[in-house]
Amino acid sequence: MIVNMAVNATEAEISHVVTRIKECGCQAHLSRGEERTIVGVVGKGDKHRSELEALRSAPGVEEIIYISHPFKLASRDFHPQGSIVELGKGVAIGGTEVVVAAGPCAVESPEQIDAVAESVAQAGAKLLRGGAFKPRSSPYSFQGLGEEGLRLLRRAADNNGLQVVSEVMDPSQVEIMLPYVDVLQVGARNMQNYHLLRALGEVTKPVLLKRGMSATIEELLLSAEYIMAGGNYGVILCERGIRTFDNYMRNTMDIAAIPVIQQLSHLPVVADPSHGTGRRDKVAPLARAAVAAGADGLLIEVHPDPERALSDGAQSLYSNQFAELMDDLRVIAPAVGREIEPMPIEPRAARG
Amino acid sequence: MIVNMAVNATEAEISHVVTRIKECGCQAHLSRGEERTIVGVVGKGDKHRSELEALRSAPGVEEIIYISHPFKLASRDFHPQGSIVELGKGVAIGGTEVVVAAGPCAVESPEQIDAVAESVAQAGAKLLRGGAFKPRSSPYSFQGLGEEGLRLLRRAADNNGLQVVSEVMDPSQVEIMLPYVDVLQVGARNMQNYHLLRALGEVTKPVLLKRGMSATIEELLLSAEYIMAGGNYGVILCERGIRTFDNYMRNTMDIAAIPVIQQLSHLPVVADPSHGTGRRDKVAPLARAAVAAGADGLLIEVHPDPERALSDGAQSLYSNQFAELMDDLRVIAPAVGREIEPMPIEPRAARG
Amino acid sequence: MIVNMAVNATEAEISHVVTRIKECGCQAHLSRGEERTIVGVVGKGDKHRSELEALRSAPGVEEIIYISHPFKLASRDFHPQGSIVELGKGVAIGGTEVVVAAGPCAVESPEQIDAVAESVAQAGAKLLRGGAFKPRSSPYSFQGLGEEGLRLLRRAADNNGLQVVSEVMDPSQVEIMLPYVDVLQVGARNMQNYHLLRALGEVTKPVLLKRGMSATIEELLLSAEYIMAGGNYGVILCERGIRTFDNYMRNTMDIAAIPVIQQLSHLPVVADPSHGTGRRDKVAPLARAAVAAGADGLLIEVHPDPERALSDGAQSLYSNQFAELMDDLRVIAPAVGREIEPMPIEPRAARG
Amino acid sequence: MIVNMAVNATEAEISHVVTRIKECGCQAHLSRGEERTIVGVVGKGDKHRSELEALRSAPGVEEIIYISHPFKLASRDFHPQGSIVELGKGVAIGGTEVVVAAGPCAVESPEQIDAVAESVAQAGAKLLRGGAFKPRSSPYSFQGLGEEGLRLLRRAADNNGLQVVSEVMDPSQVEIMLPYVDVLQVGARNMQNYHLLRALGEVTKPVLLKRGMSATIEELLLSAEYIMAGGNYGVILCERGIRTFDNYMRNTMDIAAIPVIQQLSHLPVVADPSHGTGRRDKVAPLARAAVAAGADGLLIEVHPDPERALSDGAQSLYSNQFAELMDDLRVIAPAVGREIEPMPIEPRAARG
Repeated sequence: MIVNMAVNATEAEISHVVTRIKECGCQAHLSRGEERTIVGVVGKGDKHRSELEALRSAPGVEEIIYISHPFKLASRDFHPQGSIVELGKGVAIGGTEVVVAAGPCAVESPEQIDAVAESVAQAGAKLLRGGAFKPRSSPYSFQGLGEEGLRLLRRAADNNGLQVVSEVMDPSQVEIMLPYVDVLQVGARNMQNYHLLRALGEVTKPVLLKRGMSATIEELLLSAEYIMAGGNYGVILCERGIRTFDNYMRNTMDIAAIPVIQQLSHLPVVADPSHGTGRRDKVAPLARAAVAAGADGLLIEVHPDPERALSDGAQSLYSNQFAELMDDLRVIAPAVGREIEPMPIEPRAARG
Repeated sequence: MIVNMAVNATEAEISHVVTRIKECGCQAHLSRGEERTIVGVVGKGDKHRSELEALRSAPGVEEIIYISHPFKLASRDFHPQGSIVELGKGVAIGGTEVVVAAGPCAVESPEQIDAVAESVAQAGAKLLRGGAFKPRSSPYSFQGLGEEGLRLLRRAADNNGLQVVSEVMDPSQVEIMLPYVDVLQVGARNMQNYHLLRALGEVTKPVLLKRGMSATIEELLLSAEYIMAGGNYGVILCERGIRTFDNYMRNTMDIAAIPVIQQLSHLPVVADPSHGTGRRDKVAPLARAAVAAGADGLLIEVHPDPERALSDGAQSLYSNQFAELMDDLRVIAPAVGREIEPMPIEPRAARG
Repeated sequence: MIVNMAVNATEAEISHVVTRIKECGCQAHLSRGEERTIVGVVGKGDKHRSELEALRSAPGVEEIIYISHPFKLASRDFHPQGSIVELGKGVAIGGTEVVVAAGPCAVESPEQIDAVAESVAQAGAKLLRGGAFKPRSSPYSFQGLGEEGLRLLRRAADNNGLQVVSEVMDPSQVEIMLPYVDVLQVGARNMQNYHLLRALGEVTKPVLLKRGMSATIEELLLSAEYIMAGGNYGVILCERGIRTFDNYMRNTMDIAAIPVIQQLSHLPVVADPSHGTGRRDKVAPLARAAVAAGADGLLIEVHPDPERALSDGAQSLYSNQFAELMDDLRVIAPAVGREIEPMPIEPRAARG
Repeated sequence: MIVNMAVNATEAEISHVVTRIKECGCQAHLSRGEERTIVGVVGKGDKHRSELEALRSAPGVEEIIYISHPFKLASRDFHPQGSIVELGKGVAIGGTEVVVAAGPCAVESPEQIDAVAESVAQAGAKLLRGGAFKPRSSPYSFQGLGEEGLRLLRRAADNNGLQVVSEVMDPSQVEIMLPYVDVLQVGARNMQNYHLLRALGEVTKPVLLKRGMSATIEELLLSAEYIMAGGNYGVILCERGIRTFDNYMRNTMDIAAIPVIQQLSHLPVVADPSHGTGRRDKVAPLARAAVAAGADGLLIEVHPDPERALSDGAQSLYSNQFAELMDDLRVIAPAVGREIEPMPIEPRAARG
């Protein structure tokens, strides 16, 4: 940490800062320039972090500058070669394969989820996504099928050789969900729900953590740190669009976040262009962009009949659109040294 | 709801939209202009809200425009004259008095909370604020004293004629907190924690709901709606700064949100310039601005020794700064037809 | 400047950075911590500023941190006691008086500007504002009356004891405007039009420089520096709302920018709540907030018949609303040690 | 245009709105719902645009909703099949080829620009970029070589079979630049410099118009409209990153803007990942993403010795990095039905 003193800071003010740093168990290194003095803080001072931070408003202080990241376990320094997270049944994310999770926003019925599972598996998805507990901004909207939805999701996934990812909204749901899912998803609105993060730190299944809609990358990694500090190192990060002044799209996908996260952290990172755009016809261009930028995977909403979906219909792909997208991604992946496995059952011509 | 068709929309596309609207139990009113056709949707279609929304991505549709608010109970139309929320012991917010809650970020010790309580009561605060459960972005920071903190807070408040407001982070804490607090505060990061909002809908004590750092005012009012839909109408809204490109301050206080909320909703609205600025020397200017813009109250962080605070020291006022601020606010309040009660015990001169 | 090396930076990478710093004519001070090395750059290196900045992407560099402001003349350090800018005929901004400029968005006709000038002078304004050259986002909108507009503006101002402020859009207009105006206004969209800024540096009349809608305060002060570097020290800064995710208002007024600018710079700062909100009924609350936060002045749009204005009608006050606002501001000003001169001609009751 | 009346609007308020609409030469169509009344405005009312807009603040009006775009010539409806802009010597943008412009931020010397021109031509670029007049946020930075820079740029381009694009900052520079350049570039800070836009409307060479850093796509297209309304239809749009809360990158590239612009407008759109990221190691991922999202071209900063560049060194690629990027783009282009011509002279192996 560096304390940047104001140009007109007095000796007494500098001296006060130095004293406080020492009282916090750290050493203070003064560097007196022509214009101003800066004070380097050496030592960890972990117990006194808040007191050091309070110096920001001390008399004569212009600003405090942090030179180290507040996250440790999530940092690439902790695991320089990059983590591969195992999702079960041979599916792993963070390696050369671009792993795609696809499915509806919410599980609505056996027919719906079975149809989606079959089509996305055939197109090359490795995970089935679908919500059983839905966070809706209005209390009057469809809130999900609950445990019955999880049962349907699991069955459809198993019948099609897929693994399952689904959103957990509250610590009380963790136990209910564990028998049904392979990956627990934390939604953007819960990225800083610390009770939930702590609960997930005690689980042995991987967590897919979505970036909050106005979270910095540092804050995203601090939330990952909460989970990892509890002992669960299987964290997958997800860029899903941020809130900006631009309101043509629902969100602005921060594609640059993908290589930035890969620089700062060893954790795999996926992109969710469905929520990132909010419009069906923009999902494919942004999915292609995410893979071209180096994403380890994708989360795509697919519905057999989007116009009758109980949620997110406007951003859900039709099954055939998803299959076409997967074919396009297979062209792009080699440009970033990645691959997407070919369709397991039959060639594209058969989709016709 | 209005469906704005693209200029080049075909008759088949328009016809499809009309059919879908009717299938959703609504009527479609076509208005064909020289340039384009717009389709008005008449009827509630509550059960089919998602299907109507999915028309946003239907072929030939340019956009969907909502003409009514998605919140009802929180709307000013529901209660045109404005709500006054009773906080107990004669304190009420939403009337002519500007009600001020003050205190430390976190309860740290009996000495600390007793000293703050005495000083803020003397300066004219009506509520004592202080956290017992702390949401911290780092898992390694001080997380609060828990129930012991609540006990100390209550005692300090009672000894100084104050009511208590404190933050609840998880549904599991509601029961623990109820005996100690008069107002339950929901932090900005939990504004869309729907489990928590639903739990607070069943409580009979008022809730102070902070705006999320990138929440629109509509989203804030939808979160209030969650609480009110559960039966708890005692909701107080709070502007505490939003996240913008400007990073000199921790947040950008959206002072205009105060009169906007008062136009759209009947609920009282307060401002939190401590979190809104993050810097001690900017708290007073923004507190004055909030009252001048018509805020019903303020939330101010005060600490007897901010440089040794366990959290938020940089944005906490010294006790004498708080007293001076209260005096300035007493000058401003009449300009907006409000008042702040005089100091109960002794005149300002005695502070010297 | 400080170069923060990555945790895994090699000795060769550190050595390369040190070499480059020396080649740029500066000294490099290494500070090797337990975790990482930081390199302090001592010396100005003004000629090599770009080369030093390029180190940001050098191998092993995590980030570059600037510890001094890039502006000098605009800095408070340059003139600690604060500048008072003389606007002619005894009007000065930056002292104890809150100076208000009022008038229409655009000069439309003699009748219109005469009516406004009389009403705002009577209510206590000291400057008449009005555009003769209008920057309009659409090429099909009203573009102003040109020099004829300036003539009308000057005459109306002189007849009512007011000074004149009007917007200059292009260097070619400076000569035309000088005979008519006392203050040259630079609009938000031109804040970084460096040709215009340089032209204004050679003028001897004050410049009112509006903050760009996504400009940081540092960028605003750098634009002021352009004008001042040319020799014109009479710069007045103006907060007029920034662009954020919130789209209920046209802009988000950054009220905190007022005290922040006063801390970083000695230049006076005014607020423009008309553009800052875009809605007539929000102008007064934000004008009051700006004065309560310490603004040195205000810019308010007033029109005798806003519903028939050729521009900005929705955000223009009726004359009587402006007079009421001025009365409210007179109540608030003393809370910040300021004053607004009483109406020169007749008491408020006469407005009835 | 639709006027959405408030729920509690009175008959007198509705009647006033209707009267005003008629006075503006339009018809008013009332639609009375259960909850509220909406008023459709039929007719163009072009002369009364501002008066119609002023209804936004009329009593009883909740909001005004625009249902048609304010731009005409730039709209895709005007030219549904998409425009191809000819840049001379057989280079055209908007067709199947992805056209790449590359070169330094600023022309610095004959040696520098000759070296860059040769390397980027060999790698497959079709245009040479380079600034002769530099908009710098600090008045103390390098401001460009002026006309001499243009001469060097032209010569280097001609020697390597490239066309030239360079930035124009002021109407006074247009005449000087025309003999040297094939495309006139308008920088992000000048996107709403209407004097400049109007001057470029009278030129017969294409204009590359960069999106302002907080401009909406509608505003970008309105600025294109300014140029086109003057008769110059050769406009190329450019996404170069927007300003958001995220400050890890210099800007946030809005990759979704590429397909959005292609939907709303017939004009070609290119991406500038150099300014969009500000960091050398992020340029390639974002360039790949832009092409994968469907960009018609790219603008890439390349410098033979970035660490000694007089500007933008941190975001300039080394020549070999640019050649590798071009190879990767050749893999991606077919996924979007595009192509990039192969290197004209020798195969990649020779770069070694």
